[in-house]
Amino acid sequence: MPIALHQPEYRKDPLSDGWVVIAAERNGRPDEFCEVPVRRTGGACPFCQGNENSTPGEICKYPPDSGEQWKVRVVPNKFPAVVRCEELSPAQVSKAFKNGVPQLFTSLRGHGGHEVIIESPRHAVSLTDLDEESLRLTFLAYRDRMQALAAEGPWNYVQVFKNVGAAAGSSIEHAHSQVVGLPAVPVRVADELAHSRDFLNKTRRRLFSAMLEEELAQGERIVAETPDFVALCPYASRFAYETWILPRQPLPRFELSSESLTIALGRFTATVIGKLERTLGRPAYNYLIHSAPFDGTGDDHYHWHLELFPRVTKPAGFEWGTGYYINPVAPEQAAELLRVA
Amino acid sequence: MPIALHQPEYRKDPLSDGWVVIAAERNGRPDEFCEVPVRRTGGACPFCQGNENSTPGEICKYPPDSGEQWKVRVVPNKFPAVVRCEELSPAQVSKAFKNGVPQLFTSLRGHGGHEVIIESPRHAVSLTDLDEESLRLTFLAYRDRMQALAAEGPWNYVQVFKNVGAAAGSSIEHAHSQVVGLPAVPVRVADELAHSRDFLNKTRRRLFSAMLEEELAQGERIVAETPDFVALCPYASRFAYETWILPRQPLPRFELSSESLTIALGRFTATVIGKLERTLGRPAYNYLIHSAPFDGTGDDHYHWHLELFPRVTKPAGFEWGTGYYINPVAPEQAAELLRVA
Repeated sequence: MPIALHQPEYRKDPLSDGWVVIAAERNGRPDEFCEVPVRRTGGACPFCQGNENSTPGEICKYPPDSGEQWKVRVVPNKFPAVVRCEELSPAQVSKAFKNGVPQLFTSLRGHGGHEVIIESPRHAVSLTDLDEESLRLTFLAYRDRMQALAAEGPWNYVQVFKNVGAAAGSSIEHAHSQVVGLPAVPVRVADELAHSRDFLNKTRRRLFSAMLEEELAQGERIVAETPDFVALCPYASRFAYETWILPRQPLPRFELSSESLTIALGRFTATVIGKLERTLGRPAYNYLIHSAPFDGTGDDHYHWHLELFPRVTKPAGFEWGTGYYINPVAPEQAAELLRVA
Repeated sequence: MPIALHQPEYRKDPLSDGWVVIAAERNGRPDEFCEVPVRRTGGACPFCQGNENSTPGEICKYPPDSGEQWKVRVVPNKFPAVVRCEELSPAQVSKAFKNGVPQLFTSLRGHGGHEVIIESPRHAVSLTDLDEESLRLTFLAYRDRMQALAAEGPWNYVQVFKNVGAAAGSSIEHAHSQVVGLPAVPVRVADELAHSRDFLNKTRRRLFSAMLEEELAQGERIVAETPDFVALCPYASRFAYETWILPRQPLPRFELSSESLTIALGRFTATVIGKLERTLGRPAYNYLIHSAPFDGTGDDHYHWHLELFPRVTKPAGFEWGTGYYINPVAPEQAAELLRVA
């Protein structure tokens, strides 16, 4: 029985197994603060055409033979969170990440590959500012870099993500995405894989297929649809206006997508971000792609998907203390606004 | 063997079992943005003395017989994340939170008790702005409200937390804390309890005692000490300058602390926040108290503690995607700066 949404409600996300609190009444609370992002002046943009020397040497560019007329560039991150540690064997990494006798101080060299995808030669900010060709090549670059890092050997997972705006943790305004090759499957993805596997074992259905079928039947959380994709506000949205993009076909690994599907994802993502921007006035946002790892775990039950969230609410003491998220906008209400935007 | 800290390093927190990436080199990255918190004008502060009618009716005040000359007030949250649902039995709650056959749509009425502790009659902002009496009574109110909510019956856990500043998710500037009674132990605390239990089972030692002993022996992550408490930057700090306050005595539940220890915690917390403010220039911050649940789980191995973090770095796409935190300031470096501040 549906519960009236003016009452707070706990909801559980079947994918992460995490709980959220949908508390629409909190949306009425006063807010004495607003934060104004200020762009510091001085210094040329390191990602604009003509300033190629500001970044480490190119990994690749698109189109490949474009010389100075590139549309998309891929470069190593100049300030990497992780770096390639040649001497670490997969066995050492695997041992460090496994649980044995608990240790007070467990560490491992920061093994990983951290790259930046510069999405436009001119100073674009949001994905919706890109021209058709840069948008197409950006998403093809996601797929290519995942394929290349998979072939490199030491990585089992690649996290693709994008931060836009100060509130989303971006430090550079020029439109860019990041790609990080990791030796182990990160905890958030491992949890999703485990719950997707458990759902298959217990119900004989694929979690993502069941979710899509039921969401399309209910309709109230659907934001937009194409022949290839569905965008929806998940039932247990952690953040106000959180939106996921799911492929209709069961595809575990993003890097095995066809060229046409990859290009279609770019177009659809820009369409959905346009809806967020018209609804919320160009908010800061993050998106990320979750995909099954290269070792094949999840190939029989997981589906890659894209998670997108505008940064209009901030996790605070309650979220850090409990691990529950308070979301002041019911996903049904968010989807209704985004559908017509 | 210690690893040079200019190289990125994965570290595991034994309490949450979570991984972080300590990446000191990232601290050198450019930041084109700063966010300026702007306080909106217009409207009186609902928490200042004289505006008591702006809040729902008082739950209690300190001192109890102070009339209009109160030093600390406790009121229901006017925009609660959770509300009391009389008809929900503990069995219903327990069933909803347990795992069985996975469901696509699991929900539960938003059962909980959400209170606000107003820490000062005049317009203070940070904990360090409180006078001696308000500081003392604020921490006694934490303990009293936990005791009162424990006696009420339907709650098994109380989350005490404080948000200061826009970047910390605060919506009202006037110094206040929040207290939320919850029917079930939240996931983050349940994880800590499980790992603390596992540590005891496998090593015959209490995790917190072992951690304190080893940290005091190593010394490099210690921020400050008193006869009752130790403040340290945890080995696997998620956030730059994250600082935990641990009681030296093994006390599982905060609400069972003595009056003098509770008052001493308030003083020590204000001292540590003063160090953060001198080091970072009055940053936004959150703190929260983790404590063993009322049903006694954890009484033989868990220790309550206070987790404090300035909001100087923002979780972004990498953190949301992977569940790993990137921290650009090594805890050893943070502790060194805070020790002398």
